[in-house]
Amino acid sequence: MTVTTNPSETNGVDVATLFATLDAVKAQPEIARFQFRARNSWQGGTHSRSEFSDFHGATQEMEHRSVTAVDSDHPAVLVGQDHGPTPVEYLLHGIAACLTAGVANVAAARGVRLHKVSSTVQGDIDLLGIFGMSDGTVRNGYEQVKVTFHIEGDADEETLRGLVEQSRRRSAVYDALTNPTPVVIDVVTG
Amino acid sequence: MTVTTNPSETNGVDVATLFATLDAVKAQPEIARFQFRARNSWQGGTHSRSEFSDFHGATQEMEHRSVTAVDSDHPAVLVGQDHGPTPVEYLLHGIAACLTAGVANVAAARGVRLHKVSSTVQGDIDLLGIFGMSDGTVRNGYEQVKVTFHIEGDADEETLRGLVEQSRRRSAVYDALTNPTPVVIDVVTG
Repeated sequence: MTVTTNPSETNGVDVATLFATLDAVKAQPEIARFQFRARNSWQGGTHSRSEFSDFHGATQEMEHRSVTAVDSDHPAVLVGQDHGPTPVEYLLHGIAACLTAGVANVAAARGVRLHKVSSTVQGDIDLLGIFGMSDGTVRNGYEQVKVTFHIEGDADEETLRGLVEQSRRRSAVYDALTNPTPVVIDVVTG
Repeated sequence: MTVTTNPSETNGVDVATLFATLDAVKAQPEIARFQFRARNSWQGGTHSRSEFSDFHGATQEMEHRSVTAVDSDHPAVLVGQDHGPTPVEYLLHGIAACLTAGVANVAAARGVRLHKVSSTVQGDIDLLGIFGMSDGTVRNGYEQVKVTFHIEGDADEETLRGLVEQSRRRSAVYDALTNPTPVVIDVVTG
């Protein structure tokens, strides 16, 4: 028997607040406009560090509960010092984390109690592209990213698979990767 | 006057090893095939954690110097617990870190000594897409990502701008975002 102290919470998702938030957005669509930010600083060699602190959303400036810093570097085999995962590895975290958050939200909204969700992500890349040694057939980025979910919950297989499918349909990172995302680069010198 | 103990090192990049690595790839292109990986586990609600430990490259299984773990969550305004940056924010780190590593490598190869490289990244997103409230005109992912570099180094403005441009042309993350990246999702239940 499971004792639920907050009847509106499933999978750690406050479903009542989730639906209230959606209602608020329906009433005032401009609160859905967000801007996320990162500040990166070069540490030497191929090593850099980004900080995430503030963002804009719901018509106001907002702060994360705490500032997060993450490091990237190239491994020794790619002539770096391996002070952190490579930049491309963070994309793999992004897709896994986005789909997983969506699975939890969708499951909560559908009343499905999850026991366990894990995933492995593999990104295949031929570095001939970034080395400038391609004959034009090798791209710079991943040839393919594969996400394998392992899901356990109080529902049949079809229902559990449906959670992932709905999460995919609403995933910001899935869209950002599978469809072209405009990236503008400005340079200030001096 | 600058005292350089390793004449082959510029900007913390071992240029001799960099060029030797490129020569090795030219001689044996299959060593350029890499597979990067992340393992994600759901922590409850919209919170999940990824670990980066091993990867495949240069025809062998390899390990990072240490295992890195990163957390993602939704902020309170998006009905999360804010245990870490959102998944989409990690994409902003990825593009900044990839371009910055490239700038350092390209500068070293061109003999340009860098003093400082920093960048801010902004990603604009209208959450009507992922909320399922779009009339079809609002995408799920970022509408636009803007990277603003601040670069100081021993070179004129045109040369410094050229470093960023060459880095962009060879950036794995820039390609992964601006062009479609195939993402395959498998689900195992039970």
